[in-house]
Amino acid sequence: MKDKKAWSGRFSESTNPLVEQFNASVGFDKRLYRHDIQGSIAHATMLGRQKIIAVNHARKIVKGLKRIMKEIETGQLQLSVADEDIHMAVEKRLIEIVGAEIGGKLHTGRSRNDQVATTFRMYVRDLTDEIIHLIRQLQRALYKQAKQHIDTIAPAYTHMQPAQPIRLAHWFLAYYEMLDRDTSRFEDSRKRLNTAPLGSAALAGANFPLDRKWVAKQLGFDTVTKNSVDAVSDRDFAAEFLFATSMTATHLSRLAEELIIFTTMEFGVMELPDAFCTGSSIMPQKKNPDVPELIRGKTGRINGALVAMLTMLKGLPLAYNKDMQEDKEPVFDSGDQIRVMLRLAAEMVANIKIHPGKMANRAEEGFTTAVDITDKLVMAGAPFRDAHRIVGRLTRVCIDNNMRFSELPRAEAFNIDPRLPEIMKNSVGAAGSTNMKDVIGGTARRRIASRLKQMEKEMAKWRI
Amino acid sequence: MKDKKAWSGRFSESTNPLVEQFNASVGFDKRLYRHDIQGSIAHATMLGRQKIIAVNHARKIVKGLKRIMKEIETGQLQLSVADEDIHMAVEKRLIEIVGAEIGGKLHTGRSRNDQVATTFRMYVRDLTDEIIHLIRQLQRALYKQAKQHIDTIAPAYTHMQPAQPIRLAHWFLAYYEMLDRDTSRFEDSRKRLNTAPLGSAALAGANFPLDRKWVAKQLGFDTVTKNSVDAVSDRDFAAEFLFATSMTATHLSRLAEELIIFTTMEFGVMELPDAFCTGSSIMPQKKNPDVPELIRGKTGRINGALVAMLTMLKGLPLAYNKDMQEDKEPVFDSGDQIRVMLRLAAEMVANIKIHPGKMANRAEEGFTTAVDITDKLVMAGAPFRDAHRIVGRLTRVCIDNNMRFSELPRAEAFNIDPRLPEIMKNSVGAAGSTNMKDVIGGTARRRIASRLKQMEKEMAKWRI
Amino acid sequence: MKDKKAWSGRFSESTNPLVEQFNASVGFDKRLYRHDIQGSIAHATMLGRQKIIAVNHARKIVKGLKRIMKEIETGQLQLSVADEDIHMAVEKRLIEIVGAEIGGKLHTGRSRNDQVATTFRMYVRDLTDEIIHLIRQLQRALYKQAKQHIDTIAPAYTHMQPAQPIRLAHWFLAYYEMLDRDTSRFEDSRKRLNTAPLGSAALAGANFPLDRKWVAKQLGFDTVTKNSVDAVSDRDFAAEFLFATSMTATHLSRLAEELIIFTTMEFGVMELPDAFCTGSSIMPQKKNPDVPELIRGKTGRINGALVAMLTMLKGLPLAYNKDMQEDKEPVFDSGDQIRVMLRLAAEMVANIKIHPGKMANRAEEGFTTAVDITDKLVMAGAPFRDAHRIVGRLTRVCIDNNMRFSELPRAEAFNIDPRLPEIMKNSVGAAGSTNMKDVIGGTARRRIASRLKQMEKEMAKWRI
Amino acid sequence: MKDKKAWSGRFSESTNPLVEQFNASVGFDKRLYRHDIQGSIAHATMLGRQKIIAVNHARKIVKGLKRIMKEIETGQLQLSVADEDIHMAVEKRLIEIVGAEIGGKLHTGRSRNDQVATTFRMYVRDLTDEIIHLIRQLQRALYKQAKQHIDTIAPAYTHMQPAQPIRLAHWFLAYYEMLDRDTSRFEDSRKRLNTAPLGSAALAGANFPLDRKWVAKQLGFDTVTKNSVDAVSDRDFAAEFLFATSMTATHLSRLAEELIIFTTMEFGVMELPDAFCTGSSIMPQKKNPDVPELIRGKTGRINGALVAMLTMLKGLPLAYNKDMQEDKEPVFDSGDQIRVMLRLAAEMVANIKIHPGKMANRAEEGFTTAVDITDKLVMAGAPFRDAHRIVGRLTRVCIDNNMRFSELPRAEAFNIDPRLPEIMKNSVGAAGSTNMKDVIGGTARRRIASRLKQMEKEMAKWRI
Repeated sequence: MKDKKAWSGRFSESTNPLVEQFNASVGFDKRLYRHDIQGSIAHATMLGRQKIIAVNHARKIVKGLKRIMKEIETGQLQLSVADEDIHMAVEKRLIEIVGAEIGGKLHTGRSRNDQVATTFRMYVRDLTDEIIHLIRQLQRALYKQAKQHIDTIAPAYTHMQPAQPIRLAHWFLAYYEMLDRDTSRFEDSRKRLNTAPLGSAALAGANFPLDRKWVAKQLGFDTVTKNSVDAVSDRDFAAEFLFATSMTATHLSRLAEELIIFTTMEFGVMELPDAFCTGSSIMPQKKNPDVPELIRGKTGRINGALVAMLTMLKGLPLAYNKDMQEDKEPVFDSGDQIRVMLRLAAEMVANIKIHPGKMANRAEEGFTTAVDITDKLVMAGAPFRDAHRIVGRLTRVCIDNNMRFSELPRAEAFNIDPRLPEIMKNSVGAAGSTNMKDVIGGTARRRIASRLKQMEKEMAKWRI
Repeated sequence: MKDKKAWSGRFSESTNPLVEQFNASVGFDKRLYRHDIQGSIAHATMLGRQKIIAVNHARKIVKGLKRIMKEIETGQLQLSVADEDIHMAVEKRLIEIVGAEIGGKLHTGRSRNDQVATTFRMYVRDLTDEIIHLIRQLQRALYKQAKQHIDTIAPAYTHMQPAQPIRLAHWFLAYYEMLDRDTSRFEDSRKRLNTAPLGSAALAGANFPLDRKWVAKQLGFDTVTKNSVDAVSDRDFAAEFLFATSMTATHLSRLAEELIIFTTMEFGVMELPDAFCTGSSIMPQKKNPDVPELIRGKTGRINGALVAMLTMLKGLPLAYNKDMQEDKEPVFDSGDQIRVMLRLAAEMVANIKIHPGKMANRAEEGFTTAVDITDKLVMAGAPFRDAHRIVGRLTRVCIDNNMRFSELPRAEAFNIDPRLPEIMKNSVGAAGSTNMKDVIGGTARRRIASRLKQMEKEMAKWRI
Repeated sequence: MKDKKAWSGRFSESTNPLVEQFNASVGFDKRLYRHDIQGSIAHATMLGRQKIIAVNHARKIVKGLKRIMKEIETGQLQLSVADEDIHMAVEKRLIEIVGAEIGGKLHTGRSRNDQVATTFRMYVRDLTDEIIHLIRQLQRALYKQAKQHIDTIAPAYTHMQPAQPIRLAHWFLAYYEMLDRDTSRFEDSRKRLNTAPLGSAALAGANFPLDRKWVAKQLGFDTVTKNSVDAVSDRDFAAEFLFATSMTATHLSRLAEELIIFTTMEFGVMELPDAFCTGSSIMPQKKNPDVPELIRGKTGRINGALVAMLTMLKGLPLAYNKDMQEDKEPVFDSGDQIRVMLRLAAEMVANIKIHPGKMANRAEEGFTTAVDITDKLVMAGAPFRDAHRIVGRLTRVCIDNNMRFSELPRAEAFNIDPRLPEIMKNSVGAAGSTNMKDVIGGTARRRIASRLKQMEKEMAKWRI
Repeated sequence: MKDKKAWSGRFSESTNPLVEQFNASVGFDKRLYRHDIQGSIAHATMLGRQKIIAVNHARKIVKGLKRIMKEIETGQLQLSVADEDIHMAVEKRLIEIVGAEIGGKLHTGRSRNDQVATTFRMYVRDLTDEIIHLIRQLQRALYKQAKQHIDTIAPAYTHMQPAQPIRLAHWFLAYYEMLDRDTSRFEDSRKRLNTAPLGSAALAGANFPLDRKWVAKQLGFDTVTKNSVDAVSDRDFAAEFLFATSMTATHLSRLAEELIIFTTMEFGVMELPDAFCTGSSIMPQKKNPDVPELIRGKTGRINGALVAMLTMLKGLPLAYNKDMQEDKEPVFDSGDQIRVMLRLAAEMVANIKIHPGKMANRAEEGFTTAVDITDKLVMAGAPFRDAHRIVGRLTRVCIDNNMRFSELPRAEAFNIDPRLPEIMKNSVGAAGSTNMKDVIGGTARRRIASRLKQMEKEMAKWRI
């Protein structure tokens, strides 16, 4: 019989070649080879320990599997579409090596359904750990820049209009906090995924006295799944991974947008190193912020992967359906993209050039201390809403006369409100303004310094 | 001056009326009135405690705010587009009640940016708690059905083809497990959101010596945010809430799909109570599963809300931008939808009629014990892959002769493999088959019973 | 009998009240009342013409329907959740007015399935026409600004870096072209939607000799649907409408982003009129571009509606399923949003203030004529790639010496390439540079003027 | 100088290698090589015709380009990441072949911005044509099945409950109509995309007297773009292509869902050929409908690609930004997926086995002629709503007594309504019922036959 598919016994026609190609996942799931083989080694060892298969058979299987691992790593073993998926490919090769009688025993008490679910979880777990590590690197870069720029005064924006002066450190640290939530989200997601489905078999549980907990422990899982039907149907972990990735990409897209704007000729307060830019094929003067642009653009693709997964899962009956083969590529692609995005973001942050003078100057422009004058009026007894209106009028007058606050004649200020001249005389400059924000989370120098200290403690505890 | 906007001091033209309507959020954010007023009460009280405003002023403000709460609850206070948003509306009314001098002091040391962020987080927190409660109700309904149907044998499907017999309890419990992950996801999301931004002011932190921690505690927050720029820019909590909701909706859509299929005339193993169905305006015989269909359909809308939020946030510079006003409606709508979906799913699960006889019959059809014969061959010494092929051929022969396994003559079985007749003589029926799945998470009766016991302990600990 | 649902004959339990509320669409589909009644009038008239019902019955029905139209328009008729949907509500009221014997005949030969599909298509058609009209208004505003700014020289950007000088008219007209594709897309979508499903009944076609074409013509449809099963299952027109809306919103979001950036203090080449901005509750100096920000933000919601629709339709079996009740709200909401977005965009474009001097100055900065020098080198015989490299070096030298091209000493230019001094002597300024782009679609003055002429002819032909 | 990037003249640092890899698109855009070279050949030829470069230089360039085409096709030319993109790779190789002096002239009067836009449009155009062709193939298969099954009576469903009998042909043709809209949508999208941007250069238009129309005609474009800024910023055509693909995938997902359900053991009215199914690694009896499942699942990925594109474009300033490099992969992937999905759908439809007896039987069950009895009551003078209620009661009685309509004793029928016995005596069976639907688009035999005739004429006109 020509057709060698493992499940072909019941079939009278062989598979249509286009169908074979359509169904085959080996083209992309070969990435899982390491985790698949690790899973099989643990399974086979356990089968031996439990006397389900002979111990020396288990040993031969394990030896064979280790050889296959090397063959794949060294490129000796070529995988083809006819192998359907990585799991079949490995088993087929195992049978070539150790013979059908022994090799055929590896699949005892398991199904591709629980095998795939286990392997994929292991992959996503490692990917998650790597991403957490890369986020940490970016957080470290932000921390370092913050430390260096605690005395750089910068304008902070709302609606892209200068709002208030801050210390540049504070801006860097805003991204640190976002990324801290990201790691926390990946960690929570990891916690839910790190449960071993192996032993659930096709969907009802295995017929053999497997030691599920032992296998789970070997493979680094925290525990085993509690319902075999759910265990083979569940792809929550993939969707949740994709969401966590989307959230991180969203944060990077915000950083990218700001870098693109701050490095324009018009803003000009930051500069990207040449190594992160490219030129134009026709405009030799251009220095294009390609890296942040591409980071921003790739956010779309990462969100698209999340939509792909959620749409695929919508309305899907239990337990396994072939639709679920579409679970891997979005994870692979989003994983690839976010890793390089994080790596480049970290290098970019580490190497960005700041123009502190220009920045400080901008921070003084645009009436950014208006809130402070308002609050001083309040401290002097004005109800907040009145004070707000007074400073609104003050600003209007200054704009109409094309002056900064400090340039307005006393008399004119007095006309607006008699308290103003005194308040404006001692008017805080931008740096002074920042130090007035002396609350937890505020941009006052001492508050930032204290947050940096906290961070050092936090960073010391990071395990990855 | 006609234009009464709080920020109008600086402007020389008044707002275009279409713009006013476009900008106004009061039409939808009036939902936040309770949380807004609670937040203001805590803020005002703290301002008094910190001597930032006079204690008797603080008291009057608090009294005024409580009155406004009642006015809104009783429908006395009507809100209009001219009020811009709920926060302005409340403050305007406060000033009417206590006068501008005192009322104007409420906004001391805060900005709408931190006020909105605080209020919205409180709303999402309460919504999260309610959803967790509703998920728990659905889990309880599933648990009860499982308890009742531990001895109902059902076919389980993969690819919508009967795969193996399970106990119906096992199917109900699969959904219990999914929903358990959902609550865990909402709890994690709640943990990240329950951090108070109040005190971050516009973006740089407040100019007054606020006691942020005291306010946070009053409002039930675990802690305060650590960076004021991040605090007013962050809408992660809304996106994460929407994702958790999408995941839950996805689970409900899978349950809905199965109920729709299982209650068709053709499957006919379950029946929805009339109270959950509607008829046709033209086909009087119809009994349409409207509720599960609508649950399935609404999953699209809930996923759409997640996309709306992520798209809005993509590439948004810090700190606050008006785009972020689009953060509330997706949360409101998804919250409304998921609550009624959960409530109806719980009632549906509680009231579904099962036809155990029909189900058991189906579980025997379709060669669903093929795996068990395969595994018995393996136990008898056959390599798994060989056994698989033998049973494949056995099935082919039975199909060609339109027989069940039990109907095949011994001789024919012997022809396929000499070991078969003996194995098939003692061949497990569907119930026996389930009890062979005696591993953790398997569908064996004792394993399900033990999981039900565990659940009772889990349920006893649920606080919501 | 208490339960009055039209389809209640077959049911032994009455509907669960929460289910009733969940199923009811009257809360939102009441918007369709006008189209529903128009459809019913045409249907009833045809039933009379075809002698399917008595002509005088048809007349009474039509009279009753016209009365209901007025009752709804004047707010006399209140609709409640118990009415289920607008179609049932109208019919119930009709029966109150003309009696059950006559009123009951309106539904002859039709089902809610074809009725809803017809009504909804009519609604989307009118909405489409209104949107096309609003896009045209925006195009007119762009055309007018272009006409006014044909001699305003502006920097054009790639990667947000100044690339080349253009005439500002050219920038306005870029958006005109995008919007022209948008109208074309809405027109194509309208063509596909304008096909009448009425007569398809529940799904198999009507049992009565309806004159489908006559009804279709009365209701402004181009033709009738060709397959009754498809006719009641099809919601392509809603999805396509949502996509066309997403595309338009995307264009508006790009315009919005540019306006936000160009009106920053740092760019400062444009200014939004006060009427389109709002202030800050705490920062009196702020003038926030709320309108473009909200336009940009609402793009997320509009894309979300498209995802909602596509997700809902995915994997839905034929013919009608209750999931499809989720078809209307995304269309209603996206329709509402895009209309106000377009209206405001048109007013904003019409009222935007340009600072031509600042713009022209920027257009001269940033080495934006580098391409022109390059091309002149090419015209002087240099291979393009060489010329590109020469001008690259020229730019580098100028940057290092903080000079414009025009400020570089001849000798230095000669050192870079002997041909440069001559070329740079006659070096085009920004305006001259634009006129060198003398190809179709180029920014040369005469090309823009010619495009404006063409547009006048196009606009004269617009019917809406 | 080591760094050979075409734009490197202005740069003092060389590109970071990770950046180089991140920026490079050659890994995926090499697919465009054929269209890129065709575009370059037309451009070079025109440069010669216009005397912008020497005619013999143009000839040498063309010859060189043709050689490169062959080198790529035969695998002789290997592309590497260092080549950045396919356009640079081709040009670099051209310079190797014809020398820098001549080869460097190819890029005269164009920029990568207009070059990429042109090439990509050509690719999407060819892809569109191929997809239209494949949709046509599927429509042909549906037509053939319809022709063969005009006398097969089938149950049609709403809410997955049997609603009315139809002719199976009618079901096949419902999909034909959907796909007809799909081709129409692709054709409209093609019309908008088939406009040549070449000549727009970087964004402002070319400095040389290009003959844009001549080039456009050579490359099969209908016309040239009218605004150079728009021309390089526009990716509408890619988004519209992705939407048209999503709509088609949605239709295929509906077909897939129905095939999965109709081929279950429980429905059992259709059977997929073995060649389109696979088995289980553990359950030898399974015959899984992998192909329709994967078609359904891939719809998620295709919708995800649309979201990716729209998200990427949202809020993107004009003209070119690097984000736009993310435009190709979604198109490539969705194009690949939909092509194989269509091909397999056509083969599946052509080879599906129908069980007409079982189908006809089902069509008689479930009271599917209730509408017809209702309508006969109406024809006998009953108001529709009364008739509906009478038949509702009739159905209830039959269900309670477990009878079909035909089995109900006359007396019982008379009790419900005196007109019923007479009407039910001549009660139409399922086939008769279908022929009562004698309206355009109805399922009556003669209406289907007439639609099939129309289709033959339509198919004769298809050019692809």
